[in-house]
Amino acid sequence: MGLRYQETLTLPFDMVDVKQELKIPGFLAYCLALSGRQSDLLGRGDKEIFEQYGLVWVVTDYEVDITRLPRYQETVTIETEAISYNKFFCYRTFHIYDEAGELLIKILAYFVLIDFETRKVSPVPEELIAPYQSERVKKVARAPKYDTLEEALEQEREVRYFDIDLNGHVNNSKYLEWMYESLEYEFLITHRPTYFQLKYIKEVAPEALVTTKVVVENGVSQHEIWSNGQLNAQGMIKWGSRDDSKQ
Amino acid sequence: MGLRYQETLTLPFDMVDVKQELKIPGFLAYCLALSGRQSDLLGRGDKEIFEQYGLVWVVTDYEVDITRLPRYQETVTIETEAISYNKFFCYRTFHIYDEAGELLIKILAYFVLIDFETRKVSPVPEELIAPYQSERVKKVARAPKYDTLEEALEQEREVRYFDIDLNGHVNNSKYLEWMYESLEYEFLITHRPTYFQLKYIKEVAPEALVTTKVVVENGVSQHEIWSNGQLNAQGMIKWGSRDDSKQ
Repeated sequence: MGLRYQETLTLPFDMVDVKQELKIPGFLAYCLALSGRQSDLLGRGDKEIFEQYGLVWVVTDYEVDITRLPRYQETVTIETEAISYNKFFCYRTFHIYDEAGELLIKILAYFVLIDFETRKVSPVPEELIAPYQSERVKKVARAPKYDTLEEALEQEREVRYFDIDLNGHVNNSKYLEWMYESLEYEFLITHRPTYFQLKYIKEVAPEALVTTKVVVENGVSQHEIWSNGQLNAQGMIKWGSRDDSKQ
Repeated sequence: MGLRYQETLTLPFDMVDVKQELKIPGFLAYCLALSGRQSDLLGRGDKEIFEQYGLVWVVTDYEVDITRLPRYQETVTIETEAISYNKFFCYRTFHIYDEAGELLIKILAYFVLIDFETRKVSPVPEELIAPYQSERVKKVARAPKYDTLEEALEQEREVRYFDIDLNGHVNNSKYLEWMYESLEYEFLITHRPTYFQLKYIKEVAPEALVTTKVVVENGVSQHEIWSNGQLNAQGMIKWGSRDDSKQ
């Protein structure tokens, strides 16, 4: 068990969609910034680890279970914990609870440390990770698998200025936004996600032309993001019909 | 002088751009949510005024002076004040200060109240506005003027799912994002805004096809947003070269 860190958040209008429900893609970035505040408190902010080790954190995978999406002006508690790590991977959870203490969303994020100069994955330095009190494990958690997409619907889109983050590449949260937006508006307003998983394979550069691929079957959408002949990210989202919901 | 309300904010990575500077378009939405928190405290939240009066707030114009854009992890104070109102318009300022108390950004926003049913502008009810202690003025502040664009560069873009807010139309902050993104990436990373003004004319619906028009001349960009043969918004941005800056 690692040290836990939590904050509360009352959802403002700019964090919800047309259904008045949490916008999940931007929320992934919000959660990363929140875990950054835990790291700052522990003396392990991004700036410190870059200056002391020449390393930067990179998310490789997400697995997310959604029982219910919180709504406009609802107050939630976000609790994060760096639960465990092995030679190369660190595993962090985010649990989002409503005011009654019910678990709404559970996020599992896989992180690696990259050497900024060589761009290679670095072993996790013990003294870097120590303050989080995470458990050291031998086993490498198996990241979710993805099918190869066949007969996918393809759409092109240009990378825009505000897609680029301070690392000079497309922000992680944009890939999920693109996956959502490769689906029809009508589908999106009549469905809600119950589970999704994402894999980041290669960063996307400014001004790139991106191809989104999507296959929807049996309430599941499978996604790929391509640019310059390279697979950049994969995703899978399970959807429930909003009509089935009691809300 | 109206009642003032302030919050501090330490800029997380998802609120800054590739230059590590505040992303202004999303920040406009952030400021509106902040003024909403003042209204909630005064018993005049959006929900209350909708339920009691059938009215909704709409921003018609912005005028924004930028001395310096705050940077990643910088802590700023945002102070807002509903300064004055007349029969139809309410005027609100947002002042953004750095930790030394220097004024970085000044935002003047023009608001009207719309009758939700008739979609017509409503006179401002005295008892609705009273808690803000704004000054009642006779004079209508003159909103900035705009040139008609000639020989503009035109680009088309599709409205996307996450462009739509809980009011069912494109969020105000997206128009400024579109204006920025009608400029070249190279221009945006080598310039910074020193002033801009925006006028909202007509809302943009989901799934619309939008045309952005832009003319750049002498360090000033002029913008129009069109959809379905209708002018939706106008904007003007003054730019300074980043090389001229002392930062």
